[in-house]
Amino acid sequence: MSIELSDKSPLRVAIAGLGTVGAGTVKIIQDNAALLAARCGRAVTITAVSARNRTSNRPVDISPYRWFDNPVAMAADPDVDVVIELIGGSDGVAKAVAETTLASGKDFVTANKALLAIHGNSLSQLAETHGRIIAYEAAVAGGIPVIKVLREGLAANNMLSVYGILNGTCNYILTQMRETGRDFADVLEEAQHLGYAEADPSFDVDGIDAAHKLAVLASAAFGFPVNFKAVHVEGIRRISAVDISFANELGYRIKLLGIARLLDDGGIEQRVHPCMVPLDNPLAGVDNAFNAVHVVGDFCDKITLVGRGAGAGPTASAVVADLVDVARGRMTPTFTVPVAQLQQRPMVAMEQHRGAYYVRLTVADEPGVIADLGAAMRDQAVSISQLSQHGRGTGAHNSVPIVFTTHETTEAAMNRALEALRRLGSLLEPPSVIRIERL
Amino acid sequence: MSIELSDKSPLRVAIAGLGTVGAGTVKIIQDNAALLAARCGRAVTITAVSARNRTSNRPVDISPYRWFDNPVAMAADPDVDVVIELIGGSDGVAKAVAETTLASGKDFVTANKALLAIHGNSLSQLAETHGRIIAYEAAVAGGIPVIKVLREGLAANNMLSVYGILNGTCNYILTQMRETGRDFADVLEEAQHLGYAEADPSFDVDGIDAAHKLAVLASAAFGFPVNFKAVHVEGIRRISAVDISFANELGYRIKLLGIARLLDDGGIEQRVHPCMVPLDNPLAGVDNAFNAVHVVGDFCDKITLVGRGAGAGPTASAVVADLVDVARGRMTPTFTVPVAQLQQRPMVAMEQHRGAYYVRLTVADEPGVIADLGAAMRDQAVSISQLSQHGRGTGAHNSVPIVFTTHETTEAAMNRALEALRRLGSLLEPPSVIRIERL
Repeated sequence: MSIELSDKSPLRVAIAGLGTVGAGTVKIIQDNAALLAARCGRAVTITAVSARNRTSNRPVDISPYRWFDNPVAMAADPDVDVVIELIGGSDGVAKAVAETTLASGKDFVTANKALLAIHGNSLSQLAETHGRIIAYEAAVAGGIPVIKVLREGLAANNMLSVYGILNGTCNYILTQMRETGRDFADVLEEAQHLGYAEADPSFDVDGIDAAHKLAVLASAAFGFPVNFKAVHVEGIRRISAVDISFANELGYRIKLLGIARLLDDGGIEQRVHPCMVPLDNPLAGVDNAFNAVHVVGDFCDKITLVGRGAGAGPTASAVVADLVDVARGRMTPTFTVPVAQLQQRPMVAMEQHRGAYYVRLTVADEPGVIADLGAAMRDQAVSISQLSQHGRGTGAHNSVPIVFTTHETTEAAMNRALEALRRLGSLLEPPSVIRIERL
Repeated sequence: MSIELSDKSPLRVAIAGLGTVGAGTVKIIQDNAALLAARCGRAVTITAVSARNRTSNRPVDISPYRWFDNPVAMAADPDVDVVIELIGGSDGVAKAVAETTLASGKDFVTANKALLAIHGNSLSQLAETHGRIIAYEAAVAGGIPVIKVLREGLAANNMLSVYGILNGTCNYILTQMRETGRDFADVLEEAQHLGYAEADPSFDVDGIDAAHKLAVLASAAFGFPVNFKAVHVEGIRRISAVDISFANELGYRIKLLGIARLLDDGGIEQRVHPCMVPLDNPLAGVDNAFNAVHVVGDFCDKITLVGRGAGAGPTASAVVADLVDVARGRMTPTFTVPVAQLQQRPMVAMEQHRGAYYVRLTVADEPGVIADLGAAMRDQAVSISQLSQHGRGTGAHNSVPIVFTTHETTEAAMNRALEALRRLGSLLEPPSVIRIERL
């Protein structure tokens, strides 16, 4: 191999989607043109763009570029070398753009985690068939180059686990809840006003966005066919201010984490849910819109990456880094190894999860409740670590909260113990259960 | 470009130097052979090795490999595709191996920061002349893939600053001093017993190793010819237990940082010295043998990377990641852009440094000392932020410590103010001055 320093033709870039990230991508390519030419060994020129609305008010001038009403036609255009897809959504136009780009022999750069989480396998096969690459640094953790770190920087390692704070909206809401003591609905409404959360927030707050990202991250880390359906997903709607307050007292932060872990039997656990994270964990202090990913490999040991998970600049930084790879001819199979060498891995059901738990019960302030609780846990061999009953009953039905944490047990045992409690009629409200992660 | 999935000939690797990292590299290539073949698209085979002593007791079996007494002869061997240099030292054998490797048309992988800090320019020119690459992920920050992140992952950005905890020995010593209250000499001796510090510790504790790494990191980040001589270097020998204690009181941690920063006039500041880092800085909590690098770019904003900075596994993980790049044909110019496009940058002298300062004075417990201090600072327009005099004199000469911090000023003004104080005869000991970094 050799570095070619001779004059090369410019890399001709087409951009489908000109929202925040699309405009940011145009801006970097315009502002840092000389820098990119030096780093790419050739000029990077935008040759065509497409978006829903040609005349939207945008912070960049797109008039020099050929306009396409139809991004799929743009993807098929012979005067384009690489297509950047920033439309979003797992199906529809984005998928058609991806397929047309690859099938017509172009490299495909995308920030679309939903597309890769759902159709990553067929698309990576298509890329290989046509000898092209799919680059998706911007799809996970915004400006943090975690895909490059996993696929290349840590390529010597069998990964043991990868986990992270993958959704900035949720992290912002949980941070604000902690700092202000307000409840979820209240903080969400404010986040929507500030533009940190969508009008329909469910994609973020129900954990789906984080799950898309985790599915992609896990396949890149462990080298198995992407399997979004195997991801256990819970969001943050049920997290209350009182749980956040108890978490602080117990020395934890509540974070929505995406976790993929290799188990002893070779299975892979993939899950997204709120976690109690000990304060000395490197992710505990990652607040507001920052994202973070923590990776453990068999030789590198622990690596933590922290940075901005969203926003025009950081996300476009990731998009353009992919362009530099394309321009330089640096190629990597989509999920780190070629499709034929991806390993099918047993996917582990949540019932089999082993870990510790935080539980908050709301019970009537009557004799015998602690005895019932102790018996229900004992019967399932769940060992209690810390337990406290807080004050006398004051709320409705003379209710009091009981908070306890457990030693390591299984999700199945925990579910059976809580079901037994429920049947005894001791619980005035459904229990609040948050998994403790000692990562 | 296209991903070639067809059968390829194995990548034939020669390793020069079989100490801790060399043995670790052999171990990864042996243990993770199948993984590496999948990630490389071809087998990775060690074909030759060289070290000072063939029969040393090593944790890996090197008997399958061709032995060379002379690593330079090995570098010239036609049956080798890539040479890994783990000998160390900026000159002598390591340099000869590098030159022979590149001149004979092979790619060169190294963990040798001294070599690159001193001879990086001539070697990168040699690599380009012969169309080969120099890969040096293991040279900086051990297992953290910071070179890949800077040269590729953040390639869209003009870097604004890069700084880090780059020497694990110093970080271990400073952490232990803080945790135990013991003084430098005492902790150093223990670190030597434990194997965390060399018998001759000066390379580490005087900041030279960190400065080598910073010089390399800065050139990769900013794209200028490596310039080790322009790095201002101070070590940690002068840090006392009492300064660490005052730092804690004031809300700082003392860390040995390597800092490279782009100034407004286009100049580059490169410096290695102990710093007072605010507790909320992401590097403040990085303790013991961990390294960390913090990067700020014009689009990505802030990125922090934390991981193990030394040790067989983490460093060999970085070496083998470079091998995967070589095997896959992923190429990057040594300092991110080709030699001809490196930009000469004005190097900024330490006197011009702007920042805040912590100062601890040891003065006689007499009237007028605070007045002298205030006047000396005022005369140089140095504004004092916090000041405290601690207790009555108890030490030799009835001495008392005065601790103060300043607002932002220049190194030159600070030096003049302290020189004025010295001339007044108020100081019983040389002042302890530590720069405050609000990064």
